[in-house]
Formats: sequence, structure tokens, C-alpha cells
Amino acid sequence: MKTVRPHKSRTVGLSPGTLKENKNPENNSVVTVMSYNATSLEERTISSLDELHKYKSADAVSWINIDGTEDSESLKKIGEIFNLHPLLLEDISTAEQRPKMDEFDEQLFTILNMLSFNSEKNCITVEQVGIVLGSNYVLSFQEAGGDVFDPNRNRIRNNKGKHRKYSADYLFYTLIDTIVDNYFIILEKIGERLEDIEDSLISEPTNDILNDLYKIKRELILLRKSIWPLREVLMKFEREEYELITDSTQTYFKDVYDHTVQIIDTLESFRDLSGGMLDLYMSSISNRMNAVMKVLTVISTIFIPLSFLAGIYGMNFDYIPELKWKYGYFGFLASCLTILIAMLFYFRKKKWL
Amino acid sequence: MKTVRPHKSRTVGLSPGTLKENKNPENNSVVTVMSYNATSLEERTISSLDELHKYKSADAVSWINIDGTEDSESLKKIGEIFNLHPLLLEDISTAEQRPKMDEFDEQLFTILNMLSFNSEKNCITVEQVGIVLGSNYVLSFQEAGGDVFDPNRNRIRNNKGKHRKYSADYLFYTLIDTIVDNYFIILEKIGERLEDIEDSLISEPTNDILNDLYKIKRELILLRKSIWPLREVLMKFEREEYELITDSTQTYFKDVYDHTVQIIDTLESFRDLSGGMLDLYMSSISNRMNAVMKVLTVISTIFIPLSFLAGIYGMNFDYIPELKWKYGYFGFLASCLTILIAMLFYFRKKKWL
Amino acid sequence: MKTVRPHKSRTVGLSPGTLKENKNPENNSVVTVMSYNATSLEERTISSLDELHKYKSADAVSWINIDGTEDSESLKKIGEIFNLHPLLLEDISTAEQRPKMDEFDEQLFTILNMLSFNSEKNCITVEQVGIVLGSNYVLSFQEAGGDVFDPNRNRIRNNKGKHRKYSADYLFYTLIDTIVDNYFIILEKIGERLEDIEDSLISEPTNDILNDLYKIKRELILLRKSIWPLREVLMKFEREEYELITDSTQTYFKDVYDHTVQIIDTLESFRDLSGGMLDLYMSSISNRMNAVMKVLTVISTIFIPLSFLAGIYGMNFDYIPELKWKYGYFGFLASCLTILIAMLFYFRKKKWL
Amino acid sequence: MKTVRPHKSRTVGLSPGTLKENKNPENNSVVTVMSYNATSLEERTISSLDELHKYKSADAVSWINIDGTEDSESLKKIGEIFNLHPLLLEDISTAEQRPKMDEFDEQLFTILNMLSFNSEKNCITVEQVGIVLGSNYVLSFQEAGGDVFDPNRNRIRNNKGKHRKYSADYLFYTLIDTIVDNYFIILEKIGERLEDIEDSLISEPTNDILNDLYKIKRELILLRKSIWPLREVLMKFEREEYELITDSTQTYFKDVYDHTVQIIDTLESFRDLSGGMLDLYMSSISNRMNAVMKVLTVISTIFIPLSFLAGIYGMNFDYIPELKWKYGYFGFLASCLTILIAMLFYFRKKKWL
Amino acid sequence: MKTVRPHKSRTVGLSPGTLKENKNPENNSVVTVMSYNATSLEERTISSLDELHKYKSADAVSWINIDGTEDSESLKKIGEIFNLHPLLLEDISTAEQRPKMDEFDEQLFTILNMLSFNSEKNCITVEQVGIVLGSNYVLSFQEAGGDVFDPNRNRIRNNKGKHRKYSADYLFYTLIDTIVDNYFIILEKIGERLEDIEDSLISEPTNDILNDLYKIKRELILLRKSIWPLREVLMKFEREEYELITDSTQTYFKDVYDHTVQIIDTLESFRDLSGGMLDLYMSSISNRMNAVMKVLTVISTIFIPLSFLAGIYGMNFDYIPELKWKYGYFGFLASCLTILIAMLFYFRKKKWL
Repeated sequence: MKTVRPHKSRTVGLSPGTLKENKNPENNSVVTVMSYNATSLEERTISSLDELHKYKSADAVSWINIDGTEDSESLKKIGEIFNLHPLLLEDISTAEQRPKMDEFDEQLFTILNMLSFNSEKNCITVEQVGIVLGSNYVLSFQEAGGDVFDPNRNRIRNNKGKHRKYSADYLFYTLIDTIVDNYFIILEKIGERLEDIEDSLISEPTNDILNDLYKIKRELILLRKSIWPLREVLMKFEREEYELITDSTQTYFKDVYDHTVQIIDTLESFRDLSGGMLDLYMSSISNRMNAVMKVLTVISTIFIPLSFLAGIYGMNFDYIPELKWKYGYFGFLASCLTILIAMLFYFRKKKWL
Repeated sequence: MKTVRPHKSRTVGLSPGTLKENKNPENNSVVTVMSYNATSLEERTISSLDELHKYKSADAVSWINIDGTEDSESLKKIGEIFNLHPLLLEDISTAEQRPKMDEFDEQLFTILNMLSFNSEKNCITVEQVGIVLGSNYVLSFQEAGGDVFDPNRNRIRNNKGKHRKYSADYLFYTLIDTIVDNYFIILEKIGERLEDIEDSLISEPTNDILNDLYKIKRELILLRKSIWPLREVLMKFEREEYELITDSTQTYFKDVYDHTVQIIDTLESFRDLSGGMLDLYMSSISNRMNAVMKVLTVISTIFIPLSFLAGIYGMNFDYIPELKWKYGYFGFLASCLTILIAMLFYFRKKKWL
Repeated sequence: MKTVRPHKSRTVGLSPGTLKENKNPENNSVVTVMSYNATSLEERTISSLDELHKYKSADAVSWINIDGTEDSESLKKIGEIFNLHPLLLEDISTAEQRPKMDEFDEQLFTILNMLSFNSEKNCITVEQVGIVLGSNYVLSFQEAGGDVFDPNRNRIRNNKGKHRKYSADYLFYTLIDTIVDNYFIILEKIGERLEDIEDSLISEPTNDILNDLYKIKRELILLRKSIWPLREVLMKFEREEYELITDSTQTYFKDVYDHTVQIIDTLESFRDLSGGMLDLYMSSISNRMNAVMKVLTVISTIFIPLSFLAGIYGMNFDYIPELKWKYGYFGFLASCLTILIAMLFYFRKKKWL
Repeated sequence: MKTVRPHKSRTVGLSPGTLKENKNPENNSVVTVMSYNATSLEERTISSLDELHKYKSADAVSWINIDGTEDSESLKKIGEIFNLHPLLLEDISTAEQRPKMDEFDEQLFTILNMLSFNSEKNCITVEQVGIVLGSNYVLSFQEAGGDVFDPNRNRIRNNKGKHRKYSADYLFYTLIDTIVDNYFIILEKIGERLEDIEDSLISEPTNDILNDLYKIKRELILLRKSIWPLREVLMKFEREEYELITDSTQTYFKDVYDHTVQIIDTLESFRDLSGGMLDLYMSSISNRMNAVMKVLTVISTIFIPLSFLAGIYGMNFDYIPELKWKYGYFGFLASCLTILIAMLFYFRKKKWL
Repeated sequence: MKTVRPHKSRTVGLSPGTLKENKNPENNSVVTVMSYNATSLEERTISSLDELHKYKSADAVSWINIDGTEDSESLKKIGEIFNLHPLLLEDISTAEQRPKMDEFDEQLFTILNMLSFNSEKNCITVEQVGIVLGSNYVLSFQEAGGDVFDPNRNRIRNNKGKHRKYSADYLFYTLIDTIVDNYFIILEKIGERLEDIEDSLISEPTNDILNDLYKIKRELILLRKSIWPLREVLMKFEREEYELITDSTQTYFKDVYDHTVQIIDTLESFRDLSGGMLDLYMSSISNRMNAVMKVLTVISTIFIPLSFLAGIYGMNFDYIPELKWKYGYFGFLASCLTILIAMLFYFRKKKWL
């Protein structure tokens, strides 16, 4: 998870709209197509990009998914086929863009962050997803590839949901909806961890709590950096009218927009909660320090003066009258006991015991 | 009270507008109807949902209350009878929605959080309530059921208030008003607890204060998450014009909107107050630590050097001239007393005593 | 001063627009009238509310002041005479409303908080004041009664100011202006106390400072809760046009609006100042703790090892060669002195002395 | 510098638009006039206020400066001559107004705070300046008088700048510009002091830093209270059109508005910086406390157990076998050394040494 | 890096639009010209400013770069040639302006801060850059000169990018884009340092972390002071229409505007992160202090009472019965051991060990 270091691959010094060269042939893009309408469904992996031409003007809705965005040759080629703006291609190939939405002559383009919880490494992974909506096709560019859109594929295959009846803009919406839904899973994980921390805070605070809270704070910062611009993007879809988006789909965009607002609300309350836990932890540390100090002080205050007294009668002066007294020793013990009891009363009055 | 874990039952991966299946027959909904006009009142529990058809076009105002929102079959059926949008039904059946308001062709729909103080478990319970306003009916969906709307029922039964004279939109308003009024009760409880904490802070700060303050903070976060979107919802009712809401009812919506603003003001001042109490507590801890340290330091600083002196004359060197002096012992005691008094003066000057 | 507990007397469960019954006959309202124009002035206390009818259509400006708002019978009666809306009456009789302004068909209505400093109890008292502006009359409802409007009465009596020449809206303005002016007095008191705290912080910080700062913080929260909505109310008077308010009076509303902004500015700077004082206090505590710890450490570090040395030569081993040395004792003293001086140098180098 | 106590001289209870009586004849205003056009310049001190009449309709631009605003007689007279609104005169004579701008029929009126650094008392002094722009004259009212506008006078005298060619609105602008420029000087002083504090924080933190930081915080609060409303005033000059202000002068107002924005930016960054310094200071105190505690703990932990050991062999039991051993003493010393070395290793491992 | 002291060279007291005299002949400006169109390219250093006249009306796009802005003579001369407004020239020659954008009759003018990381001094350097866009020329004024625009020059030379085909506004855009791109480099450096601090916080917190965090905080403040107004400037370019900027270039301005928003997002998350690290550091200090205190308390609490016991039997009273007991010494040792073990149990129960 790159939470701190930004923009490793930003191309400072390059002319705007220029794609970096792909140096590693392993990074070649994998292109798959799902083309469907109410009655038929075609699914395939593309071997030559030229095959894509026909989907541009097909009678069906075509979903072209491109895994891997470092293959600048393929990007350029796809850009030519679908007439994509150079800045759009640059955005897709540049990692760690801010989520945003742009309208071009023939397309709507949006860049989003796909967050998913990697249970192996126990961390959140961020993947940039670029989605282009054309008149009858949707292009989805995944930075590293992955199976995040599998539920969408299955719904199309099983003819569930409304995919097969609706046009490309509904597909566009469901892809975004899937991305937003994943934020809820992340939030649920964080919520569970916050509850665990809360439990252990009250039962027995340990030092690990601090690191856990800091880690959660870092993840909340990461989430916030992704979700706020995402909300802006969806607000545009909800508020403004676009030629490519039908009215019936726009009500769905309102729904997914509401979800982002809810995510933000939850984020902010998590932030406040973790802040409250930190306060609680810090003051419980102070409290325990206080308890420790009181023990030290009580013990020292009682025994240091008594030790001094014992030291006096351990001195070797030739003439110390008390040493000759018959009950000197018992008198000494009695004095010590008196002092001890007086001190204990004093400390109890001061509520230190 | 689920304050931390969000969206347990969110249906990630399901197609939008799909209801989850009801697996537990115990969760079947209970549907009751109050149908009234200025002169007549009918009250009954529905056994077959088909009976609801007649209330849609009745000459009276019908309030149909559905307890239990996990019974997807019933929801679907009701949805068909009253022509409800699939997204509306999904919102009702999904727990922990953000309070919101939507306008559909024939209905106004709002989702709110009903907060109530559970005196047994000494915590706040949150229940989601969905309310649908049609031309002459109001549907209220309660997540778990309960008697929160009993005052409203009684007022209708007793022909008190303006219910029986006004149309469905007034009933719609009174349900919302009842929900908002419950926030004041919660606030009053929290206010009393804050006052208790304040009293004990000044008289004698204990460790429990921290946990109490944290608990209040958590509840304020929960309240804020509910009340801010509620305010947005009511602002819409106040500002915008809806066909289903008459002018006379809209002035009442202005009133309940003012209440939400007042709730928010009080929330924020509680927040500030509890923050101030935490500061006060933290610094009183520091103060007491300081007091403890001073006692330790005074005692140690006086007696550790004196003990050293006594240790010197307890040594067994063959030749220590002072030991032979006639008044050596008394000289020693006098020196100790002098040192003691000097130190006490010094500490008093330093304001440590 | 009720700073924490809100809405004690809110009537949850009552139908909106319903007044609570007045159970205590001692709470009966006292109604006084000042009716004046440029040439004449009539002042009297009303015994029967029916006498009020004539002031509604009189040729003079009538100021009707009602002390005590728990007498629901009188309120209802006055409401009938002056044709007041039920919600308006409910607002007047409900304590702890949020300051607000409403426009009704024949009246402008505003609810404000009258703050005054109670020098006996050394606290701020809050009284709710409702003011109704009609075409030629002003109704002022005081929760508990009091003499806050005496300056206004005197100016009318003495024919000073512009009261007697202007119409009812100017009277309406002067009442609000008097309320706002009282905030400045409160602020001045708080400012003086902040200065006192600042002085004692620099000269000699005591524990009371914390409680004083907390008390001021609580009062600032109370003030803010009153002044912000007051500002909103006055902004409406300044910005919007109302039939009942003449242009010349509106310029005066601009002036009083400016005052509320100035009050808010001062409030915020007091907030920042008291925050800064708390920081200063907390860190001065830490500093003093540090000083205490250094003394303890210096004394312990010097004398604990020396005591150990003395303890060695106080042992009773049969064979300890040093004890037989002629100058053993003086050698011991010299060693102690050397250690002492070395330690002092060390501590001075470390800036602990 | 009155940073805390607000509105000493606010006249609560007086009718709006009333001037307080001038009780002290020493406070009489001093009125000076500069009247100039492109070719001529007249400079004089006015002995009788009636002389001002001619400047109202003169062919030249007249700058009338009034030093001292407690002389209500003179203010009234000037008000009559130049036809000033009573509220305007009340604002001028009332100290500690919020900076603001008002438009009257014949004049533009602005109240600003003139801040200057008093190097003798090492503090910031605030003086209220009221400026009235008429068709061909500018009236400037200085609370206490002073030489802040001397640069403006000199530029007019020397015919430098564009004063003599432009009309009264340009003079009006330059007076405001001079006031704003003085904020930069204050900021520079504060910036220098912040740098000094930063240097001493890193080299050797002392207790004075706290007081210095608090003093700067107080001054920043004072500055903010003046500059934010000043910005509002200048925004109005920049954005709105006034008859009395020509287009060419308005571009200059845009410039001075930019300066206030820059001042606010710098203020906020100073605020953040001093906050960061406080954090740094507080944690460096904690660090030093930690260091002190470690020394105490290391010494105590080593020597207190050793002293106990020595105490054992200093006991006078009849039968302690070790005391008879030949090498008992040396064995004891060896044991002590072993314990000492073991402890040192332990502490080094714990990074306490 | 001047992070704290503002406006060293602001000319308080000078008439607006006046340039300060250049006292140091070493500060003479160096003027270079690149004049190009699709087919030709001319590059030269200007010796006499009169040569600039021809570029004003040339058929090519001319980029005139002026290094050094203290040479008021040259600035004046250039101002005359290109008809620049006096305020524009004053802005260019005044250091530490707030980034801003102004529209003049024939030109667009913007002042920006060029930030670059000086790896030698390990700090951020700020240089003010003023850029003027005319119909077919761009003037760039660099405060100190430097090679920041070299990538732009090379792209023009190599005929890469779109420079040579587009008009002056595209050149204008690329210069701004270069400046914004440099912010990303700074952010990357800061991000790396934050990661380093995070690593060392978790492994082993040292005192240097505080200074590092403070230094980063200072740099973030500096960055924020530059980037927020820069965002405002670019928002204007994006939102408003200017005659001098073509539609195709405006889409590029939208892109660079998006970059500034992304920079601000990253800045804010860095701020939050460093705040979280400070919290983590502070509480880990408290934790370690706690650990130290526990060791001290455990040791003292065990051995101080034991030492007192040993002291008792080291007293020289004539009659202490225990001393005569046969197994007195061993009984003493056994008691000590018992006490020790009991205490250890107690401390373990209290989780101090």
C-alpha cells in the first residue's frame, strides 16, 4: 500500500499528452470483450487490437476491459480506434491520479480508485481504474488487472439484473457502483478493528493500541483522499445532464452518490472515534503513571525518615544516652510504628491509598 | 447499540434494486391500519396483504404501519399494491441507511433514524424508519417495530390535535415530528450526565470520568451522524414545494426544521463542553501528579542527605575524632535540625509546601 | 444558569401548537402598556385583558409588555385579541427556544435570549424574550419579568431619542438593540476576568485558574449558542424587506447587525485567548514538574552513592583493611567531597542547576 | 495595548446616534487642512471650524484631518457642515468599532484600525481611524492623532506620486493603503521574533519561550480581529461600483485588497508556525523529563540494593558467619562490582545510557 | 529558504506603482529571446533592450526571458516597449508577492512561486516568477534566474511537443505547467522523509524525529501558502474566458488545475499524517516514561523497607533481644526473602513487571 509516497511515476518534464514508453514486454495489456444485447452474449479475449473496430459500431452493448495500463503501444492503438483524447490516455497510463470526470466530444471519462482489502498482507490495496463511456461501448482500464468486476460479469452472463435490457450507460453505472460498494467492505473492516481496540482499551490498554490507532488513521487518510473526489465526480453525474446518460440511469447515479455521502459520514465518525480513543488512551497512561508515582511516594515518604532514625542509633558516638536506656530499642520500635500509622492516616486522607 | 460497526447487512454484489431473501419466518411483517376522516375511525391488523388495496383509493386518510422490514415477500407485495419504486423498497429493507428524502412519481419517501433511550441497557437504540407519503395514505416501515408512534395513535383516537381534520401530509409531518422530539429526550439524558460529570470533576475527579466522557463522545458522534442528514431532509421539505404537501403543513415543517437546528446547536455545545471537561480532567491529573512529586522530593531531599550524615558516624573507622567528642551526638542532632529547618525554609520559598 | 441541561420544559408528545396548562396561579402574567405618540403618553398596568382590544386599533404606538409566560390562559386570550398564530404562542410559552424570526400575516415575530450578569450569584442569567411587531403595536413577552427594558421606558417617558416621533417598528428595533447591548456588558465582564487570569498566570499560576478557564469556556459556549442565531435573525432584518419595517428603521437594523458581528468576533478571540492560556498553564505545570524532578534527581544522585560508601565502612567484617588506616576517615571524607564536586560540575554542565 | 478588554467606552443605554459629552477640554480636536490641485497647495491648521465651509465646495481636493475624536462639540459642528449622518458620527466617536464601510447619500465612510509598533513599550498600539470620502474632500478622523499619514503629506507636498493629478478618491485610497502597509511592518516584526524563538528552541529551550509564544499568539489574535473585517471592506471597494470612486482608482483598490489577502495568508501561517513551535517545545520538555528520570532511576536502581547489602553486613547480630570469613570484605566488594556491571549492561541494553 | 520572515523588501511608504532604484550594477537583468514558428527558430541573448521592439509585432511566437528583477531601469524600458501597467512592473520587482493573476488591456499577467529542492543545502528554495502573455509573445521574469525552464527550451528546440505548432498561449501554459510539476517533486521528497520518520518511529524513536517533523511542518506551511493562491489563479484560467487564450489551450489549463487540486489533497494528507506521527511520538515518550518510573518504583519499594530493617539491626542499643538469637541473622534473611517474593507477586499482579 502506497499511502505516503505520492506520484512515483509522474512524468515531470514530459510534454503534456505524451505517453511513457513501455519498456517491459511483460506489461502488455490483456483485452477482453463482453458484447451483449437482450438476446445474445459474446465473450472473448482479444488477440489483435484491430478486432476492436467492429465493436465501435456494433448493434450490441460492448464492454471492453483492458488489464494493464503500462503498455503504451496498445493504449495508443485503442486510442486511435475509439478516437480518445491524448490527455485521456495520459491520465489512464499515469498512476495515482486524483479521481475525476471529464466530458469529451464522444465520450464520458472517469478515473476512480478501486480499493480492496488484501487479507494476506493485511492491508488496503489501491488500484486505479479508468472507465470510458461511449455511445454503445464501455472501456474499462485496470492498472494491474484483477477480478473486481467478476460480479458484474456474472450478472450479465446469468441475465440477472437489468444489464441486458439497458444500454451502455447502465453498464457504466454498475461498474462505478461496484467500486463504491467495495469502500463499504473496507469501512466494515476498519469498524471491526476500532471495536476491538475499544474493547482492549477498556479491559487492558497495551502499547500496541497506539500503533493500531495510527495505522487506522493512515488508512482513513487514504480513504478520504479517494472518496472526496469520487463524491465530486458522482455529484456531477447526479446534477448535470449528459447526452450519453439516460434519465432512468441518472436516478441510479443519485443512489450511488448517496452512498458516497454515507461513506464520508462514516469516515468522519471513525476519525472522531479514533481521536476519542487516543485521548482515552493518553489519559489512562497518565492515570497509571499517577498510580505508580503514588506508590513510590508513599513507600519513600514512610521509610526514608524511618531509615534515618535507625541510622542515628547505628552511629558510634561514645555518648548516645538513648542507647543505654533499658527500653530504648522498644521505644524506638514504638516511635517507628507511631510514625508509620500517622503517615498512613495522612495518605488515606489525601486519597493516595 | 451499533455505534461503530457500519453496514452489517449491506448487500455488496447484489444487483441494485434487489431485495435479500427472508430466511427467517419469524421475521414476517405485522401490518396495522388506521383509516380515519373527520367523522369515522377504523383500526385493524391486516391478515392478508390484499386487504390493503382498498385503502389506496379510500375516501379516508389511511395510515398503514409495517413492523419488521426483513420480510421481503411482504415488502414486494406492498410495493406492487402501492406502486413503489424498487430502489425505495431496497432502501427500506437495508439497515443503517443514511437519512434521506426522495421524490417519486406518486410518492414522497423519507428514511429516518428513530433514536430512543433504552433505560434497561442504559444505552441509545437506533431504529430505521421509512415513511412513504401518497395522495391519501401514509406507509410507515419500522425496522423492529415498537410503540414509538403510540402518542400519534392516541391523538388520532381521541380526536385531539388536528389529525382528523387534516389530510395525509399532516399525518406524515406528525410522524417525523415525533421522531425529532425523541432526539430532545436523548439530549436531555446526555445533558444530565454531563452535569453529573461536571459536578464530580470539581468535587473529586475519578478515573470513571474518562470512560463516561468517552461514552458520551461516542453517543454524540452517533447523534450527529443521524441529525445532520435529517436536517438536510427537513430543509428540503421547508424550502421546496411538493405537490403532496399543502401550504399549511409546510409551515409546520419549518417548525420541525427549526428543532433540528436547535438539536445541532445543542450537540455542538455538548461537544465543546465535554472537550472542556476532558481538558480540565487532564490538567487536574497533571496537577495532582505535581503535588505527589513535590511530597516525594521534599521528603527525599531532606532525609537522604541526613541519612548519609548518620551513615558517616556509623562507620567503623578506628579513628573518627568526632565520635570521641563529649557533645558529638548532640552536635550531630543540632546539625540535622539546622539542615532540616533550612530546607523547610527553602521549600516554602519555592512554594512547594 | 442552565448551561448544560437543555429543554427541560419541552412538551414531547403534545400536539404541535398546544399550550401547556398553567398549574400555578402565582405564575399569572402581569401586563403593562405604554401608549404614546409625539404629543401624548399613557402608562398603565392592565387588570383585565379585554382592555387590550382598544390598543390594537389605536392612533398611538402601543407597547404591551407581558411578564411571565407560563400563564397559558392569558397567552391564549392575548393571542385571540391580536390574532396570533398558535405556533407563535407555543414558541413564547416554551422555554429555551433557539433565537429565531418568523413572518406571519399581520406580524413579525422574534424570539431572543436576554443575557444579563447576575452579580449576586456571580453568573449569567438567560431569559427568553419574545417580541411581536404589529402595525401600530409591539408585544414583548418576558419569561420571568425584570427591568431590562427600563432604559427604553425612560427614553419614551423623557421624550428623549426618536421614540415618540417614530412608529412601532422603531420601538421594535430599540428593544432588540437593548438586548444586543447587554451582550457587550457580559463580554466586558468576561474580558476582565480573562485579564485577571492572564495576570495571575504570569505572576503565579494556581490551580483555580483551571476552573476559572473552564467556567469562562462554558459561558462562551452559552453566549455562542445565543448570538449566532441572533445574528441570523438580524441578517434577515437587514437584508430582506418587510412591510412592517420602514426604510429609515432598516438602516438601524444594519447597525445592530454590525454589533452582533462584532460580538462574535470578540467571542472567537476570547475563545482563542483562553485556549492559549490553557496551553500556557499546562506547559508551565510541566515546567515546574521538570524543576521538581531535577532537584530530586540531583539530591538522590549525589547522596545515594555516598550513603552506600558510608554503609560499606559501617560493615562489621572482621577484616576491612581501610578501617585500620590512620587517615582512613579523612580519606573517606575527601573522596566524598571529590565525588560531590564532580557531580555538581556534571549537573551544571547538563544545565540542571 | 488593549488586547483583551473590549468596548470600554461603548455607550450601553444611550439612544442610538447620540454622542457622549466631552468632559475634558484637553481633548479638543485639532483640525488641519491640505487643499491642493495640480498647480497649487494650501496647508493650514484650522482655528475656527466655520472656516471648513469653503472646502466643501472648493475647486481643489481638500484633505481635512481631525485629531482627537472625544470632542463631541467639534464633531457635531463638522457633521453639520459636511452633512454627516448621526450614526456615522457615533461610530467615529465610539472607540473599538469593528472595521466597516458604509455608503451614505453624499459620502462613503469607512472605519479602520491603524496598527503601529510602539518600540518604546515593545507592543502594538491600535488607533481607530475614520475616513469620509465626499465629492471633492476627504475627512480623516484620528482617535489620538499621530504622524502616520506623514508620508502621504510629504508626497502631496513634493508633488510626488499621482496625488496632485488625481481626485479625492485617489487620496482616499492612499490613506487606506498607508494603513494596510503598516500591517506588513507589524508582521515583519512578529516574523523576526518567531525566527528568534525558533533559533533558541533548537539551540536551548528556556521557559521564556512559552511567554513569548503566548504574547505572539495574543498579537496574532488582535491582528486577525482587525484584518478580516478590513478585507471585507476592501472587497466591497473592489467588487461593487460606487459613484464616488472612479474606475482607475478601483484598480488600485484591487491591489490593496490583494495585500490584505496576503496579510491574512501570512497571519495564518504564523499561527500554524507558532502552534508547531509550541508542540516542539512541549515535547522537548517531555524528552528532558524523560532524560532526568532515567538518570534518577539508573542511580537508584544500582545503589539502593547495594546499600541494602552493605546494611546487612552492618547489622549487629551475634552470629553472622560471613563476617568471620577471611575474604568476606573483598568478596562483598566483588559482589557489588558484579551487580554494578550487570546492571550497567542491562541499562545499556534498554538504551537508558 | 525564507519561510518565516515576510516581505523583506516591501516598499512601505513609496507611492504605489513606483519601482525601487537599482543600487547594485551586478543585478542587471539578462534578457534572452526564443522566437519560433512551425518552420523557424531563433535563439539569442539581447544586448540592447531596443532590439525587443521587433518581437512585439513579429510573425513568430516570441518568448522573452528576463533573469533578475532588481534592475529597475531595464524593467521600466521593457515596460515601455510592451506597454506594461506600472502596477504590473511593481509586482514583478517586489519579492514575496502572493501568487495572483491580473488581466490588463493587452496582456494577461500572472505571478507564481517557483519551488525547487536545493539538494546542497537540503532545503526548498522559492523563486518568484512573473509571466506576461501578449498576443504573440510571452515575457517571463525570473527573480534570480536559473535553469527551471530548460525542459521547455529543449522541447521547442527539438520541435517536440506541440509548442511550435501552437500560439503564445500554449507556451504560456507550458511555463505554468512546468512550475506546477515542480511541486510534485517537492511533495515526493517530503513523502520520502515522512516514510523514513514513520519507519524510525516504529523501530526506535529518537529526539531528532521532533525536529524533522517540525521542519516538514514548516515546509508544508510554505507550500500551502504558495499552492492555494496558485489554485485560485488556475481556477480563473479554467473557468473564465480570456481573449488571449484559445479553447484548445483552456482544456490544458483544466488539466493543470486538476494537478493543483491533487497537490493540495496530498498536502493535507501529509499534514494529517505528520500530526498522527507527532501524537504517536508523544505517547510513545509517555509510555517509556511510564516504563522507567515502574522500574524505579519497583526497586525502591522493595529495597527501601528492607534497608530500614537492616538499619534496625545495625543499631547500637544495649538491649536488642533479636541480636542474641541463635538464628537471628538467618531469620532476618528469611524475612527479607519473604517480603521480596510477596512484593514481586504484588507487582506482577499489578502488571508492573
